[in-house]
This record gives sequence, structure tokens and C-alpha cells, in this order.
Amino acid sequence: MNINQSRLQEHFEIISQIGKIGETGLCRPALSAIEKEAFSVVAGWMEEAGMTVRIDDCGNLIGRLEGKNVEGPILMMGSHLDSQPYGGRFDGTAGVLAGVEVAMALTEQGITPEVPIEVVVFCDEESWRFKKGVFGSRGIVGKLEPGELERTDKDGITRRQALLNFGCNPDKVEECVYPTGSIGGFLELHIEQGPILDVQNKPVGIVTGIAGPLWLTVKVAGFAGHAGSVPMDLRKDALLGTAKMIGEVNHIVRQEPGAPSVATVGSLRVFPDSPNIIPEKVEFTIDLRDIDLDRRNRYEQQIRTMIEEVAASYHLTAEVQEDTNLEPVDCAEWIQSIIQEESESLELDCPKLMSGPFHDAMVIANACDIGMIFVRCKDGISHNPAELASYEDLALGTELLYKSALRVASKINQQISSRAGS
Amino acid sequence: MNINQSRLQEHFEIISQIGKIGETGLCRPALSAIEKEAFSVVAGWMEEAGMTVRIDDCGNLIGRLEGKNVEGPILMMGSHLDSQPYGGRFDGTAGVLAGVEVAMALTEQGITPEVPIEVVVFCDEESWRFKKGVFGSRGIVGKLEPGELERTDKDGITRRQALLNFGCNPDKVEECVYPTGSIGGFLELHIEQGPILDVQNKPVGIVTGIAGPLWLTVKVAGFAGHAGSVPMDLRKDALLGTAKMIGEVNHIVRQEPGAPSVATVGSLRVFPDSPNIIPEKVEFTIDLRDIDLDRRNRYEQQIRTMIEEVAASYHLTAEVQEDTNLEPVDCAEWIQSIIQEESESLELDCPKLMSGPFHDAMVIANACDIGMIFVRCKDGISHNPAELASYEDLALGTELLYKSALRVASKINQQISSRAGS
Repeated sequence: MNINQSRLQEHFEIISQIGKIGETGLCRPALSAIEKEAFSVVAGWMEEAGMTVRIDDCGNLIGRLEGKNVEGPILMMGSHLDSQPYGGRFDGTAGVLAGVEVAMALTEQGITPEVPIEVVVFCDEESWRFKKGVFGSRGIVGKLEPGELERTDKDGITRRQALLNFGCNPDKVEECVYPTGSIGGFLELHIEQGPILDVQNKPVGIVTGIAGPLWLTVKVAGFAGHAGSVPMDLRKDALLGTAKMIGEVNHIVRQEPGAPSVATVGSLRVFPDSPNIIPEKVEFTIDLRDIDLDRRNRYEQQIRTMIEEVAASYHLTAEVQEDTNLEPVDCAEWIQSIIQEESESLELDCPKLMSGPFHDAMVIANACDIGMIFVRCKDGISHNPAELASYEDLALGTELLYKSALRVASKINQQISSRAGS
Repeated sequence: MNINQSRLQEHFEIISQIGKIGETGLCRPALSAIEKEAFSVVAGWMEEAGMTVRIDDCGNLIGRLEGKNVEGPILMMGSHLDSQPYGGRFDGTAGVLAGVEVAMALTEQGITPEVPIEVVVFCDEESWRFKKGVFGSRGIVGKLEPGELERTDKDGITRRQALLNFGCNPDKVEECVYPTGSIGGFLELHIEQGPILDVQNKPVGIVTGIAGPLWLTVKVAGFAGHAGSVPMDLRKDALLGTAKMIGEVNHIVRQEPGAPSVATVGSLRVFPDSPNIIPEKVEFTIDLRDIDLDRRNRYEQQIRTMIEEVAASYHLTAEVQEDTNLEPVDCAEWIQSIIQEESESLELDCPKLMSGPFHDAMVIANACDIGMIFVRCKDGISHNPAELASYEDLALGTELLYKSALRVASKINQQISSRAGS
């Protein structure tokens, strides 16, 4: 192998300590001191790999390895180091360490890629802290939205303040955008986070596309009152209505048996949250995903109508706010073909599969063609401390990333040359 | 009138500022710095009323006005100054200020009651901070339970630590118990917190008994997973199961139309509470109350069975923990009669009514006979910033308390004398 499996494993073992919870879990919030610590360790490895390193004002850590064509559009690779609050060691981290390992192997072997390679650790992919994520990758492709620096986390800290605390200048986030055409292609390795590869007993897969997530926040309002004295018939209980809505969301998304549509109510807050007060307000999130955008749009409409109807019948009001709405994205055919060919040269039989979870790659697809490599994870468990990928599988995926990256870098350079020549 | 309405109103206006939220709301947590500030203001008024003042190690503020029979069992009066997190200005406060006003009026008029009168501001009646309340009154009657000093609030602060911060010695809570026979009777004035007096257009009512609350905490556990990749059929979503349970609790308690049974799920937490993670755990409370203990016990059994069944059908586990279980309590006939007679002398037409909410009186009933006076509150709204009682109604209730207290104090003294003589 070109890459060094034992070094890769060692990097996993070191980085897993930063934000560790329990024996195998991880809580590494975006823009936290814990993430900053992980950044500085990875920045050290990037420097060892011969990269120049910087943190941009969106909180992205970026390592750059020069290519033969120093002016050329770059090949970007990367993923994220922030985790879910109760997450695992491999989600995001795998793509970062694989990217750094590819750079280390190239430098070690004295190979200069055709175009520069940048490995990016994207800021806040996970999205839970400010309920709107893939922040760093959106910053790079110019897709930040007005007002989002003022979004707050559970403790009332704004993203602006969190960026300041992280050492970034939030007034300069717009300067993080890469000029049009400057990214020639993007590759991301990630654990599958689903059971397909594990069931098929294949270590590595090639991603064909990414399902589009819709995130809604629903604010339900009733009227608080004493739990002992307000008769059941006179109540306006925001949580009782919400309970009905949660059940209905589940019914709506399961209309077509066998379809891959999924919907989740993952976050919920009650106000005033006291055992003997009738809940006055509830705020909850809905995460709706589908590969089929038409079906997703249809379910969204049904959910919105249902929320209105349930609110009315429980004497409540409800307000629905859209936090994130991303369309499904395809991985570029030419990049899939390169990964396919290189997997064959490694005698890997790689299934092709869709991604239910979204990734930074989905956002970077706004700027260039993308490709993704999935690594098997045990029982499909992710966003959970029990998340597990084997170091053998991760090494195979990283070797495939190495070989694919060199081919994609060459292809980017050819495309530019042929354009320049035409 | 014997009591001074304008002084009473002034006291309400001053104390409402301490912990004020919005225009009319109150958030005065038990054992907080805010409550301590309110204690010191009320302690000043107690001293003005000629009382000796102390704070016991359970966090109760106690003012004592000497009686003719200095050795005799006391007449205790009082209520609480802690509020709900999103509460009103009159709940608890009314009983405290009315008690202090009675003492002020007696001292002003040079009247010494037959037995000593103690006005107690009970610690943590509201119960939400440590999910187990009427702490101070339970301390006085010796009903604290093992381990409860280690209960924690939302921020992980134990009651032990909160008591220390408040200036109390938590190792001495057991020394707060009043010796058997030392409390001759207890009177509490409180706003009704329900709509009956308002609907009947009566300023004051006489309480016949207090419904018994049962508080349960339910812990539901499933398995976390990525909201994008775990198919709906394979999920173990703790919040989805909880939503079903909340709906079922509501059905169970409404089986007998017209019955006063009430059930409330007021507090709920999701773990890990992230929009794109399937909820692994949910913890929620059930508050079940009834005047009819048999019916309440029947509903409790149905709820426990339902929770097991729903958990099984959603592939979850559920654990039910009992936090509080108080039986309904009757107000003493002889005290009700005294209040009735005095109300007639004031030309008040006082309806007799049950209390759905529980009160410190319910706990003190373990040590002596009790009586309660209810004051009308607008639309029955309580545990809400919109809670409102008029100063005229409060003054009428306080005047009735004044007259009843003198009669009850005499009666306590007579009972002792007759016992001593027999």
C-alpha cells in the first residue's frame, strides 16, 4: 500500500482522545475549545505532510500541498472534526485523517500532484449547535445566509461570538469564498453511517448521490396553567398537541412501504418545563429526507397541513420555520469512474450506493464536481458512541482515496489544459 | 377592618419586584439568591410586626409572635415565597403576606393571642427545582426521605449544595422537626388557582380538602442513530414512543366525563436532543391528581400498564419512578366552622370548595388540624404571569384570616387547658 495503515490508526487513536466521552464516544462541538485542540493536532500533522496551514474566518482548517501547476484549480479533499453531542470517533474524522494521510504518503514518496491538493477540515458540519450546519463548506462556496451569525446555541451564544472565541473574524466570513473555477474537484471519504456495506460484507463503497435534507423547526404555543386546577377540557396543552404531531409525522413518512423516505423529530424543548405546569410552548425539529425530491416535497406539504390541523383541534397555534433545505446531489460520473477503476486495480469489489446522510461534499457540489468513498461501519450505527469502523477498512478506503486523488488531480489539470488550448 | 389594606398592597408591590419577569410574572426559584432577597425583606416586616425571626436549616423563614400561654402549642400560619419558573405574583406570596399582616395588625392593636403565632415561609413548596417539593413543610413534620439532599436541579446542583449556598446546614435538617403536639393548628390563605370563585363571583372561599398528587418520572430508552440513514422500520425512537404515551395518559384520565381527575406531562427532556439524531432517551414527568384516591390508584395502574405496552410495541424500555405520592387531606371541621362563622360576621358569602393544587397545609396536616382560605383569582389562571388577584379580595381574605386566627388560637388554648384539667 502507498498509505501507512499503522500511522493512520495511530492518528485515529490520538484524535479520539480529544472530546472523548465514555469508552468509545465523542462530544466535540463545533467552534469549541475541544475542536480547537483537535485542529491544532491535525494542523501539526498537515505541516509534517509538507502542507502550508491556515484557519479561515469561517473556522475551516485548511492545509495546502503544492502541485506541479501551482496556478491551477485545486483538488479539494476533506471532511469535519466536529461531532454529534453523543457521537462516535469515525464520523467526519475519517475523511480528515484519510486526506492528511494521502498528503503524507505523497510527500513521503516525493510525488507532486498535477494540481495543488487542499485538505479542508470544514467548520460545523454537524449542525446541531446552531441548528444550521455545513457552515464552513457553505462559507467556501458562498452560500451563507443573512442573519445566520446571530443564530444562538442552547446557552444563548451566537455563532458570531463562537467564531470570535475560536479566533476568527466574523466580519470577514464572506472573504472565505473560493473564486469560481478555483476548485477543480472534490473528494470525501466518510463512513457509510448505514448498514448496506456491512450487510453485503464489503469494506468500501462508491457513492452515487446524496439525499436532500429538509430541516424544519416547529413552534407550538398554548397556555400555561396549574396542573392541579385546570380541568382537562379547558386546557391548551402545547405538549399534548406536539405528541399528536410527532405520531402523525411518522405516519406520513411511512406511506410508501419500502421507500427510503425518513423523518425524525430529534430535538424538543418544553416551556416552562415544570412537572406541575401545563406546557405553554414546545419547540421541536423535523428532519425529512428523501432521494426523490418530488416525494419529499409532497410529504412536506402533508406535514405542514397536518401541523395546522392538529394545532387547531388542540386549541394551539403553530409556526413552521425552514432551517435547511438542500436538494439531492449526484456524484460526478467521471469521478465515480476513476474511483471504480482504481478500486478494481486494488481488487476491491465496491458496491455503488446512495447516501442518506448529507455531507460537506453535498455543499461543495455547488462549486465543482464531487466524488465520495464510503467505508463500512458496523451494523450501520453512527451518531452514537457505538459507531465502529475497522482500521483495515479505513486503510483500504484511504488507499483508494490516494489512488483516486492522483487520477482526479491529473484529470483536473488536463481539463484546464484542454480549455486553455481550445 | 382590623388589617391594613393599603399596607398589604404595598407589601405585594415591593415583593413582586424580587424575581420579576416581564410586566407581571415571577421567577423566584427555591433556595436561590432571589428567594434569599425576598426572605430578608419579609424578615424585616416580621420584625416590624414584633416577631422574633429565624431561618431554620431546611430553609424555612420563621417569625414568632408570643402568646399569653408562652408554653402552649402554637398556631402556625404561612405559605411560600418560591414561585414557578414562569409564575405569578400571588401564588404562595399571598399566604405569607397575609400571615405577616395579621401579626402586624395584632401588634398594632396591642392584642396578644392566647397562644404564640408562628408565620412560616416554607422552603421549596413549588417542587420543580429538585422535582420533589414541599420540602420545608416536610422538614417541619419529619417527612424528609433518605437521599433527597442528593437530588439535583437542571444544572446538577444538589439540594445539599443549594442549602449550603442559602446559609443552612444540611446536616441539621432533621433538627427542624417540631415536637409532637407543639403545633396546635395551621391556617393557610392561598389564591384558588382555579375558576370556581371567579365563576361564582365570590371573593373568598373555605377549603374543605386538598386533592392528592402523584408524581411519576418516566425514563424511556431506545437507540440513537443517524436521522438520514436508519430506515424507519429499524428505529428505536424513544421520543416517538413517548409521544404515544403522552396521548394515552390523556385518554386514561378522561375516561369519566365530568370527573375532576387531571393528568399533566409538564416536563420532558430528550437525549441527545439533536435535530439529526434519533432520540435515544426521553425522561418525562406525569402529574396525576384526584379527590378520589381509589380512582387515582386505578388510573395509576392503567398508566403503568400502558407505558409497558407502548414501550414494548416501539422496541423501547421504560422505567417508572415515583417522586411524590400524597393522599388527599381533609380540612378540620372545627376550623372550617370557625372560618364559616367569622365569614358570616364579615357578611361574606364563602363557598366551600376542594383544592386541586396541593399546598404546604397538606403536609402540615401530618402534625395538626388544618384550615385554608381561598381568594378568588381571575379566570382561574395560576402558575402563569397572567395570574391576578385583586387587592380588595386579598384584604377580605386577610381580614377573615385575622379573625379566624384569633378564634383558632383561643380554641387551641382551651383544648390544652381542658386536657391539662382532665
